[in-house]
Amino acid sequence: MKFASFQHAGRDGWGLVQGGMVADLSGVFPDLKAAIAADGLAFAASKAAHAPEYAVSAISFAPVIENPGKIICIGLNYADHIQETGRSDSEFPVIFTRFANSQSGHLQPLICPKNSTEFDYEGELALVIGTPGHHISRENALAHVAGYSCYNDGSIRDFQRHTHQFVPGKNFPGTGGFGPYLVTPDEVGPLGKQRLVTRVNGMVVQNAALELMVFNVSRLISYCSSFTRLEAGDVIVTGTPGGVGARRNPPLWLKAGDVVEVEIDNVGLLRNEVVAEA
Amino acid sequence: MKFASFQHAGRDGWGLVQGGMVADLSGVFPDLKAAIAADGLAFAASKAAHAPEYAVSAISFAPVIENPGKIICIGLNYADHIQETGRSDSEFPVIFTRFANSQSGHLQPLICPKNSTEFDYEGELALVIGTPGHHISRENALAHVAGYSCYNDGSIRDFQRHTHQFVPGKNFPGTGGFGPYLVTPDEVGPLGKQRLVTRVNGMVVQNAALELMVFNVSRLISYCSSFTRLEAGDVIVTGTPGGVGARRNPPLWLKAGDVVEVEIDNVGLLRNEVVAEA
Repeated sequence: MKFASFQHAGRDGWGLVQGGMVADLSGVFPDLKAAIAADGLAFAASKAAHAPEYAVSAISFAPVIENPGKIICIGLNYADHIQETGRSDSEFPVIFTRFANSQSGHLQPLICPKNSTEFDYEGELALVIGTPGHHISRENALAHVAGYSCYNDGSIRDFQRHTHQFVPGKNFPGTGGFGPYLVTPDEVGPLGKQRLVTRVNGMVVQNAALELMVFNVSRLISYCSSFTRLEAGDVIVTGTPGGVGARRNPPLWLKAGDVVEVEIDNVGLLRNEVVAEA
Repeated sequence: MKFASFQHAGRDGWGLVQGGMVADLSGVFPDLKAAIAADGLAFAASKAAHAPEYAVSAISFAPVIENPGKIICIGLNYADHIQETGRSDSEFPVIFTRFANSQSGHLQPLICPKNSTEFDYEGELALVIGTPGHHISRENALAHVAGYSCYNDGSIRDFQRHTHQFVPGKNFPGTGGFGPYLVTPDEVGPLGKQRLVTRVNGMVVQNAALELMVFNVSRLISYCSSFTRLEAGDVIVTGTPGGVGARRNPPLWLKAGDVVEVEIDNVGLLRNEVVAEA
């Protein structure tokens, strides 16, 4: 199943996406996070036949989870990206965070800030937590996943390097693309050969199989749950492969008018146009 | 004015604290964050005479803001702490984050985790944003402050050092003491000579004047607003002075039964007992 969060006719909604239509399930649960928290995705989907339906082309996509309690981002989780940054391997995943108000939905603008010229893309697989947990074992970790989506962990590199901590560069408003859909794990299949491809204006800039993650999804969930209690709707953004703009020669910085796509097999195609900050 | 968030008789409330009593204003605004977002603290306080009243001794304190959209923490913001960590000065504030579910209210337990022995205190001044803003100037920054409180940015040092990013060590459940009150800026006065003192089992372990901050509150707000839009109820935790447990010889780690106090002149006295994780 695929679910989207959206606005339609000025109202917030969420629903099941099938065949170019979305069934608005906001009468069943108020939003996607609430449906996940109630373990109610299948129940809600069973009501789709009697829900209002809109064409997908008529909705404005919101970030898949608009207000997650946590957005946990993983740094340096593909060997080729570790290599291009010149950093060394680590025994533990590198963890930083985004705020909810840094996100942008599918087909919504990414905002190129006025106080930096170093706006970079990072195509990534995101997962959304379903069942809450603390001290989750690797063996049980996948049972805590409600679904997957694409994420563009847009980064303002000069702010990321202001100090040794990454947070300022990772939290500019409208820099984190998240969508288009939450895709349930049965539709994604076991993570492995699926390719993650990022394109800027149609040019492939990142291209890697998900199996190349240094810390796989089970290890990431287990580790994160060792220092925080994961809650329904929490988002883990699993890291980006090599090919980021900052490490190209010359660097490839995003500017107004650029179109960035993050596509992952079985997960979806996230597309955003860059606009200048007002 | 002083405001508290609390539970009383099994219900969440918030209200105005005066003379050992709290007037429950949850009939005026649902919670303290909502009152701040509506610029309604003075209005709500004007209704206190007709609100239900409880003895402060009869409430269970919640974190001052239970569910902030952001908890922005400042690292290395007092010269003596920078020195004890062996790090160098920085042109910009060091920024990391906490999740809301890592917080604990005044007189509530701090949780000593079972997967670490390196639980450390960090006494700090916290501020709560009132008026939202993006690209706030230093000159206007203080107009965005709803009030101040005490914070214990409890840290799990081995997890903080797992990689170069601090987040895992700063987010264990029940490690961030926040309280007792939100105190409005008029009662705190201009920040300067007020002393911040941290005590463990009555022994003074940190003791500094707020004027010793490297980046003062105006600069912190201005900088944070350069990379994120600050919203009502957002919390900025302004950094800890020298004297943390990790840098003592031998190290002073918190253990079950310890009592940690963070006291700031004109702001309050935050007191928590440490309990072992279940």
